[in-house]
Amino acid sequence: MPAGPTPSTSTAPPDPGRYRSLAHEPGARSIEVIDQRALPAELVTVRIGDAETAARAIAAMWVRGAPLIGAVGAYGLAMALDRDAGDDSLARAFAALDAARPTAVNLRWALSRVRARVAPLAPSARADAAWDEADRIAAEDVAINHAIGVHGLALLREAASRNGGRVSVMTHCNTGALATLGYGTATAPLFLAHAEGIDLEVLVSETRPRMQGAKLTAWEMAQRGIAHTVFVDGASGALLRAGGVDLVIVGADRVTRNGDVCNKIGTYDKALAARDNGVPFYVALPSPSFDASLARGDDTPIEHRAASEVMCVAGHDADGVAREVAIGPAGSRALNPAFDVTPARLVSGWLTERGLYGSAEALHEGLRGERLSA
Amino acid sequence: MPAGPTPSTSTAPPDPGRYRSLAHEPGARSIEVIDQRALPAELVTVRIGDAETAARAIAAMWVRGAPLIGAVGAYGLAMALDRDAGDDSLARAFAALDAARPTAVNLRWALSRVRARVAPLAPSARADAAWDEADRIAAEDVAINHAIGVHGLALLREAASRNGGRVSVMTHCNTGALATLGYGTATAPLFLAHAEGIDLEVLVSETRPRMQGAKLTAWEMAQRGIAHTVFVDGASGALLRAGGVDLVIVGADRVTRNGDVCNKIGTYDKALAARDNGVPFYVALPSPSFDASLARGDDTPIEHRAASEVMCVAGHDADGVAREVAIGPAGSRALNPAFDVTPARLVSGWLTERGLYGSAEALHEGLRGERLSA
Repeated sequence: MPAGPTPSTSTAPPDPGRYRSLAHEPGARSIEVIDQRALPAELVTVRIGDAETAARAIAAMWVRGAPLIGAVGAYGLAMALDRDAGDDSLARAFAALDAARPTAVNLRWALSRVRARVAPLAPSARADAAWDEADRIAAEDVAINHAIGVHGLALLREAASRNGGRVSVMTHCNTGALATLGYGTATAPLFLAHAEGIDLEVLVSETRPRMQGAKLTAWEMAQRGIAHTVFVDGASGALLRAGGVDLVIVGADRVTRNGDVCNKIGTYDKALAARDNGVPFYVALPSPSFDASLARGDDTPIEHRAASEVMCVAGHDADGVAREVAIGPAGSRALNPAFDVTPARLVSGWLTERGLYGSAEALHEGLRGERLSA
Repeated sequence: MPAGPTPSTSTAPPDPGRYRSLAHEPGARSIEVIDQRALPAELVTVRIGDAETAARAIAAMWVRGAPLIGAVGAYGLAMALDRDAGDDSLARAFAALDAARPTAVNLRWALSRVRARVAPLAPSARADAAWDEADRIAAEDVAINHAIGVHGLALLREAASRNGGRVSVMTHCNTGALATLGYGTATAPLFLAHAEGIDLEVLVSETRPRMQGAKLTAWEMAQRGIAHTVFVDGASGALLRAGGVDLVIVGADRVTRNGDVCNKIGTYDKALAARDNGVPFYVALPSPSFDASLARGDDTPIEHRAASEVMCVAGHDADGVAREVAIGPAGSRALNPAFDVTPARLVSGWLTERGLYGSAEALHEGLRGERLSA
């Protein structure tokens, strides 16, 4: 399959979305992010100026999405070095930010990249270098996602040419511009296809417990005028069995050396249903989410989140006021694994910035050496 | 596999649950049902005295569950005959009640059974006969479910004997005493196992969009002191892959001649994940839910419900007040198929009141002639 170098940032046009998940004004010592918990009812931005707040924003999911939490972590480390650029401060901030969420590999990857850049420098030079490295990580993410979009667009064009110009794509959770620095991962091909006039329908699984599909992906599609339909996670199989879905594209929080995909809970169920119905199942994989250091998906640490995310649903009432409703008995226990593992055997292809890989071996070969070891 | 006649009502002890989904006092011309929309926050009962209200209770899901809506339909027909026992009235009421929900075959089965009983009679004798037939349908349902429980209990005892007395069972939606006239279908083996001291854990999938698992099954388990854990539908695959689940038991709204299972949306996804992980997948099937008149599951009419069930979640706030919260953008479209079809090839066995059948052929043979043709 294809190769070629990672595109430079200059090759990626600006993301056409009218919202930015993260903004860093040149020279500023803080960033502005969208508090994604308020969407789709309200577009609320928050300024983050210290590492503690950056860690809280990641852990409490004001920001989420593997690429975005990587970038917020990198900026958080720069903020810590602004206050104290000594070795102890660097180690403490690295550990605190790294602990904010365990499953996505990008967070540690981005933190490691900033640390590798600044550690050899004199303390007085570290903070500026860290801000610069964080800016590079952010800009590269836009370029990576755009390249994933270009490679994925080829799949959508093929499907459209078979179907009289129409394509129906199922996706899961939110892998959009909100989950990244721009374009999104699994959404990048969708945004490019819509922009070139392909008649696209996106099937958006709501993604319990936190509803990132219904809340965030549906909102992003609406912002761009892309036809989309929300469905409950349990309807994935029925919709794939009914026919009419051309392909499934999901994101990845971490892909291990053997091609196993750790991603938002519910991904594995979709992969099984896609396979049972002959629908191709693609994983959009920016190279920083590939972790050659782990042999298999089951080696990935799976984050278990609070039971209250299952037993209470957050939304907004008819007046737009944020509210939570309990959906079960107060005394009932709940399990809340945030991610699952989809075995590589169920994946039709891994869609990276370097191209589409059809086997775990080709993927490993193609991305070899791209990642800074964590 | 086993045989023997359908047990008479006298063989089923009373259901130990402290709540009754439907009560009919001897001689009364009305019934009392639980308005299940208020659970688990409140146990609200409603009296139904006319066929129009019975149809509304079914369509708006004050009552739900294939066996229960069959019984409510039967009583509704009796109520219509109380007012006017002529042929036109009988036909009109049959049609109106039958249209209340399309997917479960029990509703038409129960209505047909009442009609067959009363049609040959003089109009003056019809209403009393209809009330009597509805009472029989209700009593037989308790006996059928108890028998399913006895046959299913054997499976749970086997699993417990392999696991040092512990059994973990995954179920879906609500097939409990609330969905039936007593014991439930997929829950009957669980209630009997718990009653005889088996160390049981029930994994309850919440069952979006209406959350009947989290709201009703969790409540029924809590009422009986059975250890249970709620999880989101998308976690089914992850939990089955993690190991530790001994079997999956689900209910059925309709099983066709080839053994395909039409049941609550999300059932097919669980069957796929069970198969991928070698976990046995059983379907609790009272014979009135078997429809030999349809060749395949895909011939079953699938009810599509309102998009608002997907885009808004009903629950209760911290003060116990019922509220709805929107979880997506106001303009987003949603698809809401209420049921899916699980192909017979994914079913380990069909658990009926006559015993456990391991193939569609044996099932068809075993239940032949049991059902009144609809």
